[in-house]
Amino acid sequence: MDITTLFKLSYGLYIIGSKDNDRNIGCVVNTVTQATSNPVTISVCINKDNYTSTCIKKIKEFSVSILSEQIKENIIGVFGFSSSKDKDKFAELQYNYTSSGMPYIKEGIVGYLQCKVIDFVDNYTHTIFIAEVQEAENISNSPAMTYEYYHKVIKGKTPKTASSYIPEPEDTEKLTGKYKCNLCGYIYTGSKEEFESLPDDYKCPICMATKNIFVTL
Amino acid sequence: MDITTLFKLSYGLYIIGSKDNDRNIGCVVNTVTQATSNPVTISVCINKDNYTSTCIKKIKEFSVSILSEQIKENIIGVFGFSSSKDKDKFAELQYNYTSSGMPYIKEGIVGYLQCKVIDFVDNYTHTIFIAEVQEAENISNSPAMTYEYYHKVIKGKTPKTASSYIPEPEDTEKLTGKYKCNLCGYIYTGSKEEFESLPDDYKCPICMATKNIFVTL
Repeated sequence: MDITTLFKLSYGLYIIGSKDNDRNIGCVVNTVTQATSNPVTISVCINKDNYTSTCIKKIKEFSVSILSEQIKENIIGVFGFSSSKDKDKFAELQYNYTSSGMPYIKEGIVGYLQCKVIDFVDNYTHTIFIAEVQEAENISNSPAMTYEYYHKVIKGKTPKTASSYIPEPEDTEKLTGKYKCNLCGYIYTGSKEEFESLPDDYKCPICMATKNIFVTL
Repeated sequence: MDITTLFKLSYGLYIIGSKDNDRNIGCVVNTVTQATSNPVTISVCINKDNYTSTCIKKIKEFSVSILSEQIKENIIGVFGFSSSKDKDKFAELQYNYTSSGMPYIKEGIVGYLQCKVIDFVDNYTHTIFIAEVQEAENISNSPAMTYEYYHKVIKGKTPKTASSYIPEPEDTEKLTGKYKCNLCGYIYTGSKEEFESLPDDYKCPICMATKNIFVTL
């Protein structure tokens, strides 16, 4: 079995927004699929270990921000490589609320959905939520971000909690001495010395981790 | 609610192959999603009215042919706009069998999967199958066909049984007098007279329907 065949399935990229009591919470997923057209329902697969998954099981509502190619890559990084348990991921960006109060990203999206969970299925490490779409609005006509574009053009990484996560082989010889973000796996392109001379408030461009999170390879 | 927002979700395009006793059966879908990575499982959403859905519920196995941009468009048409109940859709093309005997397309694909159903959920008009991937092989490095490429470049149509089907508004003034395939909705680009002078064995380039299926608008 060649596991890389699974990389050939095509996806978009989405931020799921929900609530933990009064707090905004969310995560990034690639697994939103329309499930029926009448009524309009979607399915979305989220790792059980994601705090967002736990919260959606309680509140049974969430938003889907459909990302455009213009989304800032560190927004994907923050939503993919940190937990809403520890951090308000929406705090540092522009957002709005759907009519039932679910947070969605305001800039860099092509549209958003407001969804109400009608069923869910636990499947090994992940939960598949089935939800009725109650609100759907177009925001821009930019191209939607695809998972392929994120990997090939933006060189984005896949969080370990993603259903499609497979560890990437690293070319250790070429990378020896480089600095790597220990949170998302981003490799700093410059030399060891260049990394060390960066200001103390330097942050990973992908996941916004602080400089002290980086390790040498 | 703007239903067109749902068009902004991104998908690939796949042919599901299975068996009805000794007969090969199948349909086209855009809803294959990796659900977990360990073990490798996928989900796929198929209309309950599709004969393929009925057969998969019995046999609990199917293949996924991951289509490339090079797939002949009439293969998509035949799999999308006719029923395996009446027709052997695999008969007129090159195909192979997975190790457990599920038919998959041989040419114009980037890879294929062999899957065993482990669960399914009925959701209104559609069934979401969850299946373990038992076999996965890469066939070519061509770009995978996306749903967007199919609609924008190939000008392909969406079958009425698809979870993403929404009737397309027609510009009746411009189309008056044109011939339209009554099965898949393809509009013959030439004039009424040009259509009528086509040979009797003319077939719809999208779904291979015969000439007598066409109607004037």
